[in-house]
Formats: sequence, structure tokens, C-alpha cells
Amino acid sequence: MKIERALGTCYYPEHWPKEIWREDARRMAELGLKWVRIGEFAWSRIEPEFGTFDWDWLDEAIEILGEAGLKVVLGTPTATPPRWMIDRHPDMLAVDENGNPRKFGSRRHYCFSHEGYREESRRIVDQFAARYGKNPHVAAWQTDNEYGCHDTVISYSDVARKAFQIWCLNRYGTVEKLNEAWGNIFWSMEYRDFADIDFPNLTVTEPNPSHVLAFRRFSSEQVVNYNKLQVDIIRAYSDKPIAHNYMGRITEFDHFKVGDDLEIASWDSYPLGFLEDRIPESDSFKHAHSRQGHPDFQAFHHDIYRAVGKGRWWVMEQQPGPVNWAPYNPAPLPGMVRLWTWEAFAHGAENVMYFRWRQAPFAQEQMHSGILRPDSVEAPAFHEAEQVARELQSLSSDQNVDAPIALVFDYESQWVTDAQPQGEGCHYFDLAFDYYCAARRLGLSVDIVRTDARDLSDYKIVLIPGLVTISDAMKSALEAFDGEVIAGPRTNAKTAELSIPRPLPPNMPGLDATIAYVESLRPSVQLPIKEGGNFIRWREQLETTAEIVATTEAGEPAAVRSRNMTYVAGWGDQALLVRLLSETCTRIGVATELMPASVRRRDTKNHRFYFNYGNAQTSIGDIDLPPAGVVWKEQSST
Amino acid sequence: MKIERALGTCYYPEHWPKEIWREDARRMAELGLKWVRIGEFAWSRIEPEFGTFDWDWLDEAIEILGEAGLKVVLGTPTATPPRWMIDRHPDMLAVDENGNPRKFGSRRHYCFSHEGYREESRRIVDQFAARYGKNPHVAAWQTDNEYGCHDTVISYSDVARKAFQIWCLNRYGTVEKLNEAWGNIFWSMEYRDFADIDFPNLTVTEPNPSHVLAFRRFSSEQVVNYNKLQVDIIRAYSDKPIAHNYMGRITEFDHFKVGDDLEIASWDSYPLGFLEDRIPESDSFKHAHSRQGHPDFQAFHHDIYRAVGKGRWWVMEQQPGPVNWAPYNPAPLPGMVRLWTWEAFAHGAENVMYFRWRQAPFAQEQMHSGILRPDSVEAPAFHEAEQVARELQSLSSDQNVDAPIALVFDYESQWVTDAQPQGEGCHYFDLAFDYYCAARRLGLSVDIVRTDARDLSDYKIVLIPGLVTISDAMKSALEAFDGEVIAGPRTNAKTAELSIPRPLPPNMPGLDATIAYVESLRPSVQLPIKEGGNFIRWREQLETTAEIVATTEAGEPAAVRSRNMTYVAGWGDQALLVRLLSETCTRIGVATELMPASVRRRDTKNHRFYFNYGNAQTSIGDIDLPPAGVVWKEQSST
Amino acid sequence: MKIERALGTCYYPEHWPKEIWREDARRMAELGLKWVRIGEFAWSRIEPEFGTFDWDWLDEAIEILGEAGLKVVLGTPTATPPRWMIDRHPDMLAVDENGNPRKFGSRRHYCFSHEGYREESRRIVDQFAARYGKNPHVAAWQTDNEYGCHDTVISYSDVARKAFQIWCLNRYGTVEKLNEAWGNIFWSMEYRDFADIDFPNLTVTEPNPSHVLAFRRFSSEQVVNYNKLQVDIIRAYSDKPIAHNYMGRITEFDHFKVGDDLEIASWDSYPLGFLEDRIPESDSFKHAHSRQGHPDFQAFHHDIYRAVGKGRWWVMEQQPGPVNWAPYNPAPLPGMVRLWTWEAFAHGAENVMYFRWRQAPFAQEQMHSGILRPDSVEAPAFHEAEQVARELQSLSSDQNVDAPIALVFDYESQWVTDAQPQGEGCHYFDLAFDYYCAARRLGLSVDIVRTDARDLSDYKIVLIPGLVTISDAMKSALEAFDGEVIAGPRTNAKTAELSIPRPLPPNMPGLDATIAYVESLRPSVQLPIKEGGNFIRWREQLETTAEIVATTEAGEPAAVRSRNMTYVAGWGDQALLVRLLSETCTRIGVATELMPASVRRRDTKNHRFYFNYGNAQTSIGDIDLPPAGVVWKEQSST
Repeated sequence: MKIERALGTCYYPEHWPKEIWREDARRMAELGLKWVRIGEFAWSRIEPEFGTFDWDWLDEAIEILGEAGLKVVLGTPTATPPRWMIDRHPDMLAVDENGNPRKFGSRRHYCFSHEGYREESRRIVDQFAARYGKNPHVAAWQTDNEYGCHDTVISYSDVARKAFQIWCLNRYGTVEKLNEAWGNIFWSMEYRDFADIDFPNLTVTEPNPSHVLAFRRFSSEQVVNYNKLQVDIIRAYSDKPIAHNYMGRITEFDHFKVGDDLEIASWDSYPLGFLEDRIPESDSFKHAHSRQGHPDFQAFHHDIYRAVGKGRWWVMEQQPGPVNWAPYNPAPLPGMVRLWTWEAFAHGAENVMYFRWRQAPFAQEQMHSGILRPDSVEAPAFHEAEQVARELQSLSSDQNVDAPIALVFDYESQWVTDAQPQGEGCHYFDLAFDYYCAARRLGLSVDIVRTDARDLSDYKIVLIPGLVTISDAMKSALEAFDGEVIAGPRTNAKTAELSIPRPLPPNMPGLDATIAYVESLRPSVQLPIKEGGNFIRWREQLETTAEIVATTEAGEPAAVRSRNMTYVAGWGDQALLVRLLSETCTRIGVATELMPASVRRRDTKNHRFYFNYGNAQTSIGDIDLPPAGVVWKEQSST
Repeated sequence: MKIERALGTCYYPEHWPKEIWREDARRMAELGLKWVRIGEFAWSRIEPEFGTFDWDWLDEAIEILGEAGLKVVLGTPTATPPRWMIDRHPDMLAVDENGNPRKFGSRRHYCFSHEGYREESRRIVDQFAARYGKNPHVAAWQTDNEYGCHDTVISYSDVARKAFQIWCLNRYGTVEKLNEAWGNIFWSMEYRDFADIDFPNLTVTEPNPSHVLAFRRFSSEQVVNYNKLQVDIIRAYSDKPIAHNYMGRITEFDHFKVGDDLEIASWDSYPLGFLEDRIPESDSFKHAHSRQGHPDFQAFHHDIYRAVGKGRWWVMEQQPGPVNWAPYNPAPLPGMVRLWTWEAFAHGAENVMYFRWRQAPFAQEQMHSGILRPDSVEAPAFHEAEQVARELQSLSSDQNVDAPIALVFDYESQWVTDAQPQGEGCHYFDLAFDYYCAARRLGLSVDIVRTDARDLSDYKIVLIPGLVTISDAMKSALEAFDGEVIAGPRTNAKTAELSIPRPLPPNMPGLDATIAYVESLRPSVQLPIKEGGNFIRWREQLETTAEIVATTEAGEPAAVRSRNMTYVAGWGDQALLVRLLSETCTRIGVATELMPASVRRRDTKNHRFYFNYGNAQTSIGDIDLPPAGVVWKEQSST
Repeated sequence: MKIERALGTCYYPEHWPKEIWREDARRMAELGLKWVRIGEFAWSRIEPEFGTFDWDWLDEAIEILGEAGLKVVLGTPTATPPRWMIDRHPDMLAVDENGNPRKFGSRRHYCFSHEGYREESRRIVDQFAARYGKNPHVAAWQTDNEYGCHDTVISYSDVARKAFQIWCLNRYGTVEKLNEAWGNIFWSMEYRDFADIDFPNLTVTEPNPSHVLAFRRFSSEQVVNYNKLQVDIIRAYSDKPIAHNYMGRITEFDHFKVGDDLEIASWDSYPLGFLEDRIPESDSFKHAHSRQGHPDFQAFHHDIYRAVGKGRWWVMEQQPGPVNWAPYNPAPLPGMVRLWTWEAFAHGAENVMYFRWRQAPFAQEQMHSGILRPDSVEAPAFHEAEQVARELQSLSSDQNVDAPIALVFDYESQWVTDAQPQGEGCHYFDLAFDYYCAARRLGLSVDIVRTDARDLSDYKIVLIPGLVTISDAMKSALEAFDGEVIAGPRTNAKTAELSIPRPLPPNMPGLDATIAYVESLRPSVQLPIKEGGNFIRWREQLETTAEIVATTEAGEPAAVRSRNMTYVAGWGDQALLVRLLSETCTRIGVATELMPASVRRRDTKNHRFYFNYGNAQTSIGDIDLPPAGVVWKEQSST
């Protein structure tokens, strides 16, 4: 699939006097931007009172942008219902885990389960789609904005409780089956009726993890079907592709399932904000990457959304300078905005949109930089975008490389570790990410695949660490696969209802191995592996007749192998994972090259890209990389 | 009093198909277990609807276990009222300090003050006791389960408020006396009526500590009389001993007073869970003891419950492997389950019951190990239990040693430091525990005694650190005592209503010493004592004519002595306490031996036991101790 | 203005039997105290039931104190409304940010917006003032007690919401203007009616900072007009000066505006409590100052309240020994009570009042020391007060020095950094304090001035770091000023409604400098300045044609200068600020002398005082200072 690359930006005409719209549009085009996203927070200007619409300004804004040669992404405004909506539906607010309504005054103030708000959403989306469905300048759509941001998937409202009870009825059929599935005999938690079922919050001690998982599944599905509600309406009026802009490290809903209803996946990439706000690295690591971001975190999301978008994906919002919302908000190292942009393209992005065109001088995000300053002068990002636009002239299209390695990524596995971490910090997301980082350190391009992937034959290696339930279909796919599989810890550790399966885990085809027990380790503990590296956080006691390929210093099996399946009986640190993966690659003839600590690379069909996430000059082979440097070479072969 | 030792386990027939009960019973007996506890969480299976009972399964389970030669401890199921109970009594839930009900969905979801739930408890206990009171296999009873676990003593419910007002009326008689007792003139807090009195929560700044103490006393008494309610019913039907299973470091109710109504005290010993969850030691200490637990914490509780049970006590639940509820849940060092078991026996336990027979594969505790794995295969604990069972054949009975030293332990003193710590971390429990540890480091066996002990003549040394109010009776007992008394800091520092007494503290008989002021110290401060050791956390400025036996480097009295009373004017670190205690022992001819850091010993009438809490080989004298090692020698004399 | 110095104490006759009042008064006078404050928490004894008054005891107490030669400060008792008041006005309680009422049982349990409680306050103040307005012994008044202590300025009650809506109406006139001022178009937050406006709490993500600032302004004004309500009544009956006792580092209301209605400002100085409780210094700093307090924190407040009181100010409560409310409560180093007292006098205090006369043995503050112990024996503070009283005989009066340097201090700037810190720990208060400390380190006496100061000609240097909005009037004052001005970071960074102004900041007269962007830095980051020192926490990217007087190692302008204005483009550490200030002083001929780390000095018209905040002997020039030492020399010149 050929990918055409382009740049764009996010623009809020409603924030600025009409007089400057045309000049803004001209400057965007002149900078080399092709796309502009608008509309997604403008409900109060489009419908200032219920039923009273003002479309003129939006018509005009689209016309001006379109005339300047820009393609418009039109966002539905449902993430910010106006104040009058709360008067119409006082109970539409989500409720937090302590029982407090999450009030009007910022954004995302709605409960996904509220039928009244769903109806209002249908109404406004219908208005948008009917009016602009055939507009020649509207070239794509965005539904809502950043589902799940600010912990908004889960709501403990009365309407959500009722909806959850119905969801349980639909899933389990009878309350007896639910009691059985959840093991409610434990602590006499048995229900007699679906109406007995409450949320798993505010219980005296921890609630039943199966109860939690059911509630998490329900909550995710509410997002999926809310999004589909919007998509169905837009599609009735428009043949343009529909996207949603996902946010970094949001795991409370299944991104793949929302993506099934979209043509394009996109995400909002804020490397410096994420580093401080949602990556559990050490203080020294954060210090060293303060102005660059984590060298693998963006790539991981790029690869996730390439999978979510079935190949089509964008960066809908790209950090252009300091943001306002992280604990600390430094400026990027000069060159990083260009680097982040090229990295997205190297991972197959069609489009990178800078957020935002001009820094707003007011309200919550006034300290969030843009391409322009509030006084319309060019901010540093302007010049980096300009450089990328120039560079794109000779690299305007490419294709994704055939990655040798696949990492199966799964949202439900994260919900399971939320419900039952068994050790502080033992999150599935971080385990999967650690495997991903190890592959990247070896210079490998990685594909993310879904748990419902049935044909893995494109890959040489498939990684399934922490994939908590292996379906029969996935088992068949793995059995049919003749490359290498690396599993564990926690792979296939639970049934679909979050109990311990019998035979005991991992119970993987062709591997004689049984986990006698697991243990979680305090952060101060490192369990050395004789062959190199350590287990941290988590270890499993294996009983096995399989070949032991790594051993703890205490003499227990650390990794075992049978046929093409390697099972790792603990949480490997980077030293261990890099070694393990390197040996696997060597065994089957996949070329690797250990990257310098700050360097990552990514292949496309035509090029090999190198990115320096360090703030010092670095070289790899004959490639010299300045700080924040990007270098690409034509691929001689692949 | 001769002690017969035995092993047992906790079993949940309701979790497993009937088909395997008989096999389970057989394996228990074969392993050498004599006791099995059942029933305590099974209310929803016994009474699935209000008034509809299903006893058949329980009859059968008891019969099968009994036929296998096991003695049954039958638990009343009141810690887990079924879901229908909440429909009958919607206001029976306890309320947290923020005013939220503590909801159904786990366990212990009731307020001790709710009369409706008390009535339901009477009803179900009556059913249990009537049916099984004469059952030949039921050899002991357990009331409820782990009172106070998950912070469940204190409830801020409406029914608790009303009950507290009545309690105040009963205690103080008139509101004027209450105002006087609490010093309510301060900040115009005077009440005009008992109905004015609310809980001491959600106040603008700290509430009156006397108000807090009264509420804590009330809350404790509600547990005591709730337990008595159950005991009275059981006793009407059964002549078997009644126990309750206390939990580690639960201090919100007076364990002694609950124990007054029981024949047997028991507790639930989870050494690794406690280490991570409720012991304020350093990271390096926890690292070193991660797989062994604190070397004194279990012993301290053993000695407390020997006192609570007036000599008769059990471990009702013994950790057999990793648990699920601590921040980190490692596996014990091989040998520790045996060590913990023998340590309990050495302290006088009649019975050590492993929790649980088989790891449940579902619900909250599915990651809590058992003697068997979920697939019924033997888990590591099985083999350690087996070894203990073998060893018991030649050590099946013994008697408690006459300990030379007594530590007076008091729950009210902890409530006082909860209400008024005066310095972060200045908890009575930790102060008392520090003295206990120092005695243990010197190889001494310790008895815990209650504040109402009147005859101390069995002892050579009595320790009363932090005992916040010395009653007249206790004063008389101390005056009559001709051994050594070590007091302070904070001993006799408050009146019974939590005010400062005049004459100023410590005001101990025969000791001319006045505390001019006290100070709490930040954790970074150590005040060196010239004679060795340091004060940490707390120091008192003494005015005295007594003999000064230790001095701070600044020249202030650190410890003074008069007749047989030593008063320590600060919180001693281990170096100071070990030295002080060692000198005292030397003076009066009590033999001590400094233990290696990881070794502890405990004497019985017939044996001296050594326990190695370290993960390295250690020796003391001619005794060699492997990691997790236990060694005993016959007592040549005592 | 000549200042007469005196000592006093705070006394609670209602806590003690009448029998000892006369003896207490005698001992006070004998100690050399001249003033005594009473009455401020005694409402329940004065009006035990609504409308039933008992004045006899208070009449008698005042008479006894007056007869002993003491002058009485009479406090209105409104900080502690009695329990019956809550029955009369159940909704008078303030509400916390989670929606819970802040209940009766301690103090300050009222919402400033409650009209019913305002009416009750008028009633009781009228009673007080009418009865004692002409009493010959009542020589001053205190309104209420420590406004804002325990976070009591802000209330989320229903009555506060209504009052806030009216305040918005009054400020903005129309809701359209409010929407425009706050930038509510952002995220469709526009209101259609003032009744739409809620508090900025419990929003899904952060609320609009302009909304927060408006609510903070409203909350502050509620305190100002509540205080004025009391002042107006007292003044109708009495010609004696009226004070309020402010508390350390309370910033939630504008102290200057409350002070506008008072004759005397006073504050409650607890150096050791503040060190542990509200100063963000390192653990090692706190360790070193544990018994002395921060060497600049008291002085800073002294200088603030000299400004708030328009020259007339007191210490209404002076820490005499250990307190009860900080995380750790050590005793002061011997000599510190005297040092703190003399430091207050050196900064121009008329009166230093020790809190309290006698340690109360009951209720919340029973562990708070006094001049006397609970048993009426002299506590350590007694003797230090006695020494000061002796020393005062020869230093009973003085005048304030003309300070060479002014620091403009502003409460609104703190509210802005509360609403929008942009980086953790970037609080205005700490920034201003850091400049103050640097000046003190150079031996300079400093005046605090208000943002509405219009004539700065008394000063050589004016410091305006972080002053977030420079009014036109302040701009004019600065233009007219021919001394040196040091500004930045964040100076003039926002409009009065908390948006980014255009032209961009700092936009200061005569200085060509534009902040292209700002960044906040993680605590681990120090940005070295070539000329010495570092930026920490915050850096601004300047575009400028002005003279660059300091440069970062990365080559960016760190400080620029034009005419008499220096702008510092980052948060300087002490090394940087001391150097910068020292160079500025040198340039314009202000003499400085670098103080030893523990020494501070302060000039009066007649004397130069040296204070040793260290616990070791120190010398400066020919002055030898013992630990906690105070030395003064006559001023030969000024």
C-alpha cells in the first residue's frame, strides 16, 4: 500500500477574528501544510441555544481554508457539550469513583451510557454530516476527541449502573451463570438478580477481579458503540474517510474495536508531556530525555495505530513546543519537532498535523505552544515544519516495510493487570513495551498485531508476553506458525473470566511447562540470570521437561523452549530481553544491529531512517547523527 | 499448663465439587493434619434467600471431614452477609470517614452498631449453634472472621452516631461532665446535649483528641459486645471452646476485652504480607527480609495472643506461600513455612492451621497460595507441613517457659497516639515493639501482660514504655513489684480522658522526675547518648533528683533510676535499648546472649529453639543454622 | 514614626479557675509584660445559649488584668461559633472541594458568604464593642482569629455559589463580557446566564484558570468585607486601634486589603512549626534549622506586615517552645525565643506577644508549650522573655530604617500560580521569597511594598519578580523611578483576567524584550549561567535588542538590561540572585556585606542587629555570635 505523506495543523477559527482567517490560511499553505482540522470543540458557537444554529461562520471558515488549497478534517463537537446541555440532561455527567459528578467547566463531561446524550450526539452529528457531507473541502472526519482522555471511559453514574446490569444479562444470560463465571461463592458474593449488581467501587476491601473485568469490558464497549453511532450517521452522508484521534497510553477501551468502524486511526503525540506524565522510568532517565522524549514511546504508538487503522494512520496532533499539562513542561531540543515528524512518516503515517496553528492566549491551554505564537509570529516549530515540508518534496511517498517481528498487543490484558496486578507496577502495558523496546534496540522494525490475527506467516518472530488469555483461535494460529514465538510471563495465565485455568498456565501447545506459583518482587530486588540480565518485578516457578535455555542463579528455570516456542518465566530487564531476542534472531537468520543508547532506526520499503534521541553527537557505522538528528539512506535491498 | 501441638488447615467445601471432598479429607489426614476450619464465608450457600436454609451440604462436609479423623472448627459466617441482607437493611453498611457507604462486593460490609444486623447475626449464629452444637466432629468454634481487618472497626454511619451519643451518656452522665472531661471550653466546643455530639471526622482542623479517644473506645466496645452476642448464643448450645481469629497489627479494638469472652485466642500469621504492608522498616531491611518476614513480628503477636487467650492460643491461618494482598508478594525462602510453624509452637501455640488447603482459582484470593495448587498438586508448603508433622511426633507436647521479662501492652495507648501522635510516626505500637525486639535480641523470652495485671511477681523485669495512663491499681502492682521496671517515654503521660495530668508526668511512685516538655524529632535527627545509642523521634526534658544513668551529648538526663524504676526520657534506638536492657539484666542476674542479627530464640519448658530468619548460614555458639533453619535443644535447666 | 516596644502574652481566663487569675496577672506584670490578649475563643462562655449572656467572668477578668497594669487586647470570638449556632444555621458550614461540609468540632467552621452567620457576627461584635468599647483597660481589638488558617478562605457551599454568581455579575456586567474575559469559547465553555456559573471544582480536567482566578478574587473579597463588617461596628464604640492576627504563609486572601481597614497588622510567628509544615526546603536544610527555623521566613513576614499595617505591626502570637501542629515539633535552641523576639523588634514590631501564658492541659493544643507549664512552673520561654524585658529597658523605642531596597509583593500573583503553575512547585510566593533571601544574604534591610505603590523614590532598588500583571499605574511609577528595577521571570506575564497579553510579555517600558516561549524544568535540571549561578524550575526564551548581562551556557540571554530595568529570564538560584543583586548594589553604590550562612542582620534607625540562626559560634567582622545569639550595635550613620 503506497503512502502519500503530508503535513497539516489544527485550527480554531472560532478563537480568532474573521479578519485574520484568510491570512492564516495563506500562511498555512505557504508553509507547505496540506490539511487542517477544525470544529471539534465549537459546539457552543454552532448551536448557542438548543435548536438555534449558527453555521455561517463555519461555512465561511471551511470555504476560506478550502480556497487556500487546504483539505479540511471536520471534527464532531461532542467532546464539549455546551452548558445548556446540562440543563436538559442533568444526569448526563459521568460520576467518579467516589460518587461525585464530574462537572461542567472543562471537557469530556458526559457519561457514555446516557441515552439522552447519545440522542443529542446523534442530532448534532446528523446536522454536521448533512451540511458538510458533500462539501468539496471536507476531505476527512474526526469523531469526538480523544476518547478516554482524563480517565473518562469509566463512569459510576446511575445510568451506567443500569446499562451495566443489562450488559451482564446479555453476556451471562442468567445470574447463576454470572455467579459461576465470577466465582461469587467466594465470600458469599452471590447475586440473585441482575438488579443486585453494583459497580466494583467503594467496596470494603478489593472487589472481585472478575467483577472488575466485566465492568471494564462493558465500559470499553460503551465507547465502541458510542463511536459507531457517530460513524453510521457520517457515512450516510459522506464518502470521506473517518478517523478518531486516540491519545497516548490510554488503555481503558479497546482501540482496535473502535478502529474497526473507522477508515483511519490517528493519535495525538506529545513526547515531552508523556515522558513526565505517563512513563514509569527513573528520574535519571527522565532527566536525560527531558527535551527529547522516550526513544520508543512514540514509535510504539505509531505501530499500534498502524494496526488499529489497518494500515492507514495519522498523527492528528503533534507536539510543537512546550505543552501545559505535564508536571514539567520543557521546550524540545532544537530539531526534535522535525525528528518526531519524520519518525511518524518512517512508521507509515500519511499525515502529521501540528497542534496547534497558533498558541491561544486564553483559557486552559494558553501555555501550550503552536506553530505561531499568540502574536502570530513564527514559533520555533514553524521552521522545523518548514524544513520537513521541503524534505517531503523528494520523499513524498513510500511503503511500509515487511517487519520481521510482530508483537501481539491486547487491551484486555491491561484491564486484567489493573484488576489484579499482584505486585505494584506489574502492568501489562509496560511488559509489552519492554519487549518492544528490546526489539527496537536491536534495530528491528516491529508490527503490532491483534489477538484475533489468524495468519502470522508474514513474520519470523511473534512476541506474546503477558497476553493473558490465549483463545483457541490464537492457539491454532500459533501452532500453524513456523517462526519463533516468545511468550511469558503471564501468557495465558487466566481464563476469559479472570480465573486460573486448569491445566495450570501457560498450557501452550507443544510446551510441557506448568507454573507452580508466581511471585512479585519489590523494586529493590533483581534476580540474576546466569546467562545474563535479570528478572525484575515478577517471577514464575516452572515445572518443565522442556529444554531450559536460561536459569536463575538460584538454579530455577528462567526460560524454556520447545519446538518454536520460548517461554520466559519472569519479567526480564532490558539486558535479558535484548540478549534473548538477539539470540533468537541469530538462530533464525534475522539481521540485528545493537543501536547506541540514544539511536533508533526504522525501515520503510525504500529507506532506512536513523533517529538520534540523544542530546549529543552520535554515530552508528558510517552514519553521523547530530543531537536530535535524522538521517535516511536508500534501502539497497529488502 | 501442658500444650498439645497439632496442625490443621482452612477448607472451603463450598468452593469445590462434592466429589472431591472425601479425597481432600483423606489427604489432609494423611499429611498429618488434625484440624480443619470451615464455614466462615458460606452464608449465601447456607441461606440463599432469607429464611430458606440449605444445610445438607454442610452436614455432609462435616461428616466427611469428621469421618476422616479431622476435628472441625466451625466459623460463624457473619463477616460475609449475603446480598439479600442489604435489601433488608440498606443502612447496615458501615460508612467511611468521607461519608461514603462501604458497599457490598467484598467482605466485612457491616456496621457493628446496626441493631438490625445484630439481630440477623443472632439469628444465623443461633441456627449454626443449634444445629452443630452437639455435633461430635465440631470441636471448636470461630466467631466471625478477622474483626477490624480492612479498617472495619470504625464506622461513621447514622446508627453509629446515635449509638455513640448513648455511649457518651452512659459514660459521662451529664453533658457538663463530658464537656469538662474533654476540655470543650477550648475553642468553644461545649455541647448542650448529647444529641449535639457528632463524630470527630471532617472537622475543619484536628478534632479534640479526647473526643477522638472517646469515639475509639466506643468503637472498640461495639466489637466486644458484638462478639459477646455470638459467644453467648454458641455457649448455650455447645461446650466446645470458642475462638476468634485476630489479624496482624490490628489495633482499633481491644483484643484483650474480646478475648475475655473466648476460650482460645488465635491469629492469622502472614509474615511476608505484613513485612511489605504494615511494618515501618527501611527499604534495605525489607529487602533483606523479603522472603522471611520480620524476625520479631510474628513472635510479638504470638506472645500477645498467648496473653489474650489466657494461655490458650492458635495460629488460625498460617501463610503457606505467596499471598495476594501485599504491595509485593514474593515466595517464602524454602524452609520458612516450617520455621514459622515451629516458632508458633515454641511460643505456645496449640495448633497451627495453614491457610488454605487448596488455592482457589477464582475471585479475590485466586493468587493466594495453599497447601495444594488449584490443580490439587502439592504446593511447596505441603512438604514443609509434612516435615513438621513428622517432627511433631516426638515433640507433640510441651509447656510454656517462665519468661523473665514482661512487656505491658495496651490498645488504648495506641488510640492515644493515633489521636495525638505529636510527631509523625510516633506510634505506641512501634515503641512497644522496639522494646520487645531489644529483649529478643538478647535471647530473652517475653510475656505480654495486660494493664490490669495485678501481680507481677513472676517476672524479673517489667517494661512499660509508652503506657499512657497508669491506673492506681497498676501503680500499686508496680509498687509491690520488686523486680526492675523500665518506663518511658510517654509512660503515664495522660489522664484517662487524654489530658495532661498534674503533677506532671511521669509521676511514678518513688521516682522524683518531672517532664518539663517533650519534643518530637524529624527522622533525620539522632540525639546521641553518651553511654551509647541514640534517641530518635521523641525526647523529653526531665527535671529530676534521681540518679542519672544515661545522658545526652548535650548533657540532659536521658535515663534516670530510683529504687527499681528506670525512666527513659526518649525513644531509644535498638543500640540504646539493647544496652539498657542488657545492663538491667546483668544487674539482677538474668542471663542474656546477644543474638546474631538474623537469629532469634525462644524457650519452652523442655526446649530451647533457635530460628534463623536470614538467608545465609549462621551459627551461635555450637549451633549451626542453615538459611531458614530451626534447631532445638533440650533444656538442661530453667 | 517612633516605635515603642513592649512584650505581652495571650491568656484564656475561661480555661482556669478564677482563683488564680489575680496571681497570673501579677506574674505577667512582674515578668515585664505590658499587654494581654483575651476573649477570642470564648463565645460559648459568653453566650452559652442564643441570647443568654454571661459577661460577669469577662468583666472580672478584664478588671483583674487591668488592675495589674496590663493593657488588654480584646478579640471578637467569631472564629469559634458555639454548637447551638449550627442548629440555627445548618448551612453556615463551609464546604470542601469534594462537597463535604466542614463540620463543627474544631474552629473556623463557617462560610464567609453565609448571610445568617454574618448577621450573628454583627450581633456578637456589637455586644462586645458596646460593652467594652469604653473600658479603660481595653487598649486594642482583634477581629476574629487567623483568617484563612486551615484553608478556610475558599468554600464550595451553596451560599458561596450564589454569592459568587452575584460577584461575577457585578464584575462583568453581562455574561457575554464574562465569556470574553475568560475565553470561554475555548472548549465551548460559554455561559448564557450568571446562574450557569458553578465553582471551578470537580471538573473533568483542569478548569479554566480565569474561572479559578475570579473565584479566588471573590473568595478573598468575602474575607475583606467580612472583616470590615466587624471593624465598622467596633469603631462605632471605640477609638482604640483594631488589629487582626494573620498567619504565616496564608495567601488565599489579600492581606493588604484586609489591612486597609485596620490600624494595626499583626501575625502569629511559629518559626519551627513553619519550617516543617510550609517551607519547601530540602531535608538537609530542615535538619540544620530544625531548632531555629528558617533564617529569612520570619523576617519576610515581619516586613510584609509592616507594609500591611502601614507601619504599625505586632507579633500577636510568638512561639515559646515546642508546638503541637507540625509534622515534627522539636524544642527551640536555647536563646531562640529571645532571638525571634528581638528580630521582630528590629523589623519594627511594637509588641511581641507570647502564645500562650500557660500551657493548657486539655484539648487540641495541650502539647503546645507556653510561658508557664500546665503546673504553673516557669517554662524555658519565661526566662528568655524575662531577659528581653530587661534588655528593653534600654532599648524601649526606635524607628524603622530607610531600607534601600523594596520588594513588591502581591497576593493575586500567587493565585495565578495556584491556578496555572505550569510547572510543579513554580509558586509566586517562593519566587518572591528567593529574591528576599538574596537581599538578606547581602545584609540589606528590605521593605515590602504593594502593587498600588505609586512613589518608589525612597528606594534605590525595586524588585518585581513574578509580579504577574503590571497595572498602568505601576508602569508609570516604575517609569518615574530612577533607581534600579529587577524584574522577571513571569513579570507582567498575564492580563488582569489571566490571559497572555499582546504585545507579548514582559512588555515593560523602555525594555525591548519579548518572551518567545517559557519552559518549566524538572527538579533535577539546573541550567548553568556563564556568569555564575543557575536557572532552576523555569526559563524564558527572550528575543531582545537590549544589553545582555547574563547568558546561559547554551548561549541564550539569561538577563537583559535597558536603562534602569533588568529582566531575568528564569528562576535564579541563590548563587545567581545574590550575585545579580550584589552587582546591582555595587553599580549604584548601595553597601552590601555577604552574611555567613547562618547570620542575618537588620538595621533600625539607631541600631544594627545581628542574629545567628546557626547552632554554632559564628563571627562577622568584629562581631562574635554564639549559637542563637543576638548582638546589636549603635548605628554610627545611616
